[in-house]
Amino acid sequence: MTTTKTESRLPVRFGADSRVGVVAGGGRLPEAVADALEAQGARPYVVLVAGEADPAGPLAAHDHSSMELEHFASLVPLLKRNGVTHVVLAGEIKRRPRLSKMRMNFSLLATLPRIALELTLGDDGLLRAVLRYIERRGIKVVGAHEVVPELVAAEGCLTKAQPQKPDWRDIDTAREAAEAIGALDIGQGAVAIGGRVIALEGIEGTDGLLARVKDLRSHGRLAGRMRGALVKCAKPGQEARADLPSIGPNTVEMAHAAGLAGIAVEAGHSLVLDGPAMIERANALGLFVIGLPAKGSTP
Amino acid sequence: MTTTKTESRLPVRFGADSRVGVVAGGGRLPEAVADALEAQGARPYVVLVAGEADPAGPLAAHDHSSMELEHFASLVPLLKRNGVTHVVLAGEIKRRPRLSKMRMNFSLLATLPRIALELTLGDDGLLRAVLRYIERRGIKVVGAHEVVPELVAAEGCLTKAQPQKPDWRDIDTAREAAEAIGALDIGQGAVAIGGRVIALEGIEGTDGLLARVKDLRSHGRLAGRMRGALVKCAKPGQEARADLPSIGPNTVEMAHAAGLAGIAVEAGHSLVLDGPAMIERANALGLFVIGLPAKGSTP
Repeated sequence: MTTTKTESRLPVRFGADSRVGVVAGGGRLPEAVADALEAQGARPYVVLVAGEADPAGPLAAHDHSSMELEHFASLVPLLKRNGVTHVVLAGEIKRRPRLSKMRMNFSLLATLPRIALELTLGDDGLLRAVLRYIERRGIKVVGAHEVVPELVAAEGCLTKAQPQKPDWRDIDTAREAAEAIGALDIGQGAVAIGGRVIALEGIEGTDGLLARVKDLRSHGRLAGRMRGALVKCAKPGQEARADLPSIGPNTVEMAHAAGLAGIAVEAGHSLVLDGPAMIERANALGLFVIGLPAKGSTP
Repeated sequence: MTTTKTESRLPVRFGADSRVGVVAGGGRLPEAVADALEAQGARPYVVLVAGEADPAGPLAAHDHSSMELEHFASLVPLLKRNGVTHVVLAGEIKRRPRLSKMRMNFSLLATLPRIALELTLGDDGLLRAVLRYIERRGIKVVGAHEVVPELVAAEGCLTKAQPQKPDWRDIDTAREAAEAIGALDIGQGAVAIGGRVIALEGIEGTDGLLARVKDLRSHGRLAGRMRGALVKCAKPGQEARADLPSIGPNTVEMAHAAGLAGIAVEAGHSLVLDGPAMIERANALGLFVIGLPAKGSTP
């Protein structure tokens, strides 16, 4: 099993003549990244992906523009016009571009591997192709965890509640399953209850997974079973510069609604959004949130 | 990877002094087994598991009684009182017995491995323990596929529609995923669309999985994607005398509603219920149903 690349990179420092772009998908991560950059005195340039990032949300407070997914060919020129030297791809892109609507240019056509154009790759393969495409045009792609290292999940229990002995069985079982489906590039999350995996994440995402677990509580096979754990894992060999597993206050809220006792992520390979708010909420609800030692990590 | 045991057993023939019991869970399989036994001139004795088999359904036409899951200790005496020498465990048991309601006897307490009593085993481990428990008391456990070999899925395409080239990519990808989660004793089914696995079966079962795929059709990542395939696989090393993957007319109906192009199962390791009705329905809806050559089977 290969390791993820998170820990092999040092935090990025930006010079006076560099500017960071944030290509913003859905969720809270893009906002966290842009705000952290502002707080560091940098002036990020945000590209809101249409249909994913809210153009009327907090991201609009930054210097920004919007882009259709199908106009990806215009991304690099747009970033360059705005002096961007480094770019962070942050947030969820639920949609996949429709080829029929795609505005092509020769550069895009010539460079993106045909296989990526066919969009038949897993998320990770597609991401790598996009990253390579951008970097070959002279813009460096950095990971959210490099720009905002304070978002990276630390090792150890983050909450007052700690996993109990049966919870550890749930954590271990769910982690094994999350790793197995990660290796197949299917999803990042698994839920175990009573020592058994009962649900696996597909494209519905973690929120969808937890909503399902809530519904499954009435399933006969879970009768009388309490607790349970959600585990999210980076895929083995995952491109850490995009799509690291993340959790936040909403994950805690939904895990609680699903009757789970807590959440475990891999320390160093996962992002925690709105950390203080998340921990406060977990403590109020009595859930544990824990950063597990990463397996086979190469510091 | 070990092979399932389906093909290593010969069809069972019953002598004049033998009687076959059918422990009936949910679904259509128990009825198919009991009816086939009647058709063979045998007179099955049916034990309806309360809450799973319908006591007012067609099974009640056979010589029968009902049993609470928690009264499992009384199963062997009940079967013996009715002259049963061989028993088939057929159909789905969604519920797991509640220990607090369980009627114990010394025999059960002494014999069932403690680990099985704790109900912490996977389905397969628990089944094996139950099978062993029954056989040690002198009743032979036989598989539905041994009693009703005509239910076993044959190799090759069963329908007018055949998998197209992109369908084969879906079939191969979903099969790999179904085998992976099977190896972890999580579930039997996976759905791939556009060459990618988008949903995996947990305890919600195949119907739940297909209902979810139907909902996911509106997910951005599936925009413009047609077709897709459901693959069901026996777990590697699965106890074939219970819980073989099965499909039937309802599976076809739900796969169609989920927008899938067809269904693939492993030939020899899967059961087809109401075969003629299923094929007729698949042909009417234009779906393919195919029996894949079993991997590494030992004839």
